[in-house]
Amino acid sequence: MEDSTLRHKHKMQRIKAARDEMMKTKTGEKGLVIVHTGPGKGKSSSGFGMVMRCIAHGMPCAVVQFIKGDRDTGEKSFLRDRFPTECRFFVSGEGFTWETQDRDRDIAAARNGWRIAKEQILDPEIRFVLLDEINIALRYDYLDLHEVIDFLVNEKPEMTHVCLTGRNAKPELIEIADLVTEMTLVKHPFRAGIKAQIGVEF
Amino acid sequence: MEDSTLRHKHKMQRIKAARDEMMKTKTGEKGLVIVHTGPGKGKSSSGFGMVMRCIAHGMPCAVVQFIKGDRDTGEKSFLRDRFPTECRFFVSGEGFTWETQDRDRDIAAARNGWRIAKEQILDPEIRFVLLDEINIALRYDYLDLHEVIDFLVNEKPEMTHVCLTGRNAKPELIEIADLVTEMTLVKHPFRAGIKAQIGVEF
Repeated sequence: MEDSTLRHKHKMQRIKAARDEMMKTKTGEKGLVIVHTGPGKGKSSSGFGMVMRCIAHGMPCAVVQFIKGDRDTGEKSFLRDRFPTECRFFVSGEGFTWETQDRDRDIAAARNGWRIAKEQILDPEIRFVLLDEINIALRYDYLDLHEVIDFLVNEKPEMTHVCLTGRNAKPELIEIADLVTEMTLVKHPFRAGIKAQIGVEF
Repeated sequence: MEDSTLRHKHKMQRIKAARDEMMKTKTGEKGLVIVHTGPGKGKSSSGFGMVMRCIAHGMPCAVVQFIKGDRDTGEKSFLRDRFPTECRFFVSGEGFTWETQDRDRDIAAARNGWRIAKEQILDPEIRFVLLDEINIALRYDYLDLHEVIDFLVNEKPEMTHVCLTGRNAKPELIEIADLVTEMTLVKHPFRAGIKAQIGVEF
C-alpha cells in the first residue's frame, strides 16, 4: 500500500474510533421541537423532506400550512393526491400576508391553523407535525407566542416531533427548541432576474 | 374599520405594490446550479423536498448519492419503492468516508457516481438532478473540482436544474452557482445526548 493511502487509512480509523465513541453517548430519543428559520432557501422544503422520510418509515404525519395557500404548490398536490392517509394536509392561510391586506381575516386563519395544529400534535397516531410558515404568523402576532410555547413545552406528547418553519423565528421559540437551523442566503437567482421556478421553489 | 386594522391594510398594500413591481423584473427562467452547504441540518432533506415538488409537477428527476449508502434511509426506500419511474435513484458511496477507510475504493465509488451524474444531467428527459453529498467527495479530492465545474458551466443543458449538497462546498463551486444556501447550526440535539432519529435524520 502506498504511503498516502496508508496515512488516509489511519486517519480515517482514528476519525471512526472517535465518532463511534461519541455516538455511544447519544442514546436518547425524544420528540423534537425543530425550527427552520433564516432568509435562505430550504426551510419548508427540508420540512417536506422529513415528511417524505416519515411516510417511508410508516410514521403517520400531518402538515399545517399557515401562510402559503394561494398557489398550487407541488408539495400540497403531491401529499394530498398520493398520500392522503399517510399525511394529513391542512391549509389555514390564504397566501402571503401582503396578498390579503386584511388583518382580521389573517388572524382568524392563523388561529384556525393553530387549533388544527394542536389537535394533530395531540393525536396519538401522529408522529411528526410540520407547521409550515408558522413563524410568520408568530412574527405578526397573529398567534400568541406564549400560548404556542407553553403548548410545545407542556402539552406536546413526549415522542412527537414538531417542525416549525419560517423567517424570523422568535428568540423564545429558539430557546425551547431542540434542533434549530438557520438557512443563510449566500446567493439567490432573483438578483440575476430569474423568477421562482416550478420544481425548485414550489 | 379600526385605525390599527386600516394601518395594517395600507402597509400591506404598499408591500404588495413594491413586491409586484419587483417580481415584474424577475421573468427569466434557467436551469439552476443549486448548492446546499454548511454544518446545519436540511441540506439533503431540502434537496429531497425539491425532488417531491418535481415528481408532483411531472418533471422527471434523478438522485445520485455520493457518500451515504450504508444505511437504509427513508428517502432511498421511498423513492425507489414508490417512484421508480419518476425518479431514478443511484447510490455510489458506501457510507461516510470514515466507515470504509479505503481511499482507493472511495475514489472509485465517487468517480462512478460522477459518471452516472453526467449521464443523468445530459439526458434530455431529466429536469432536476440531486447530487447528494457530492461536496464531501470534492472536499477529499475524490473528484476533480475543475472537471465538475467545467461540466456544470459548459455541458449542463440550459434548463436542467442540478442541486449539489454537503458541507464545505468549495468556493469555486459557490462562485459558479446560481442559488446557494448555507445551513447554519444554531442548536443540535446531539448536545443533549439525543441520537439521530428515524423520520427526522434518515
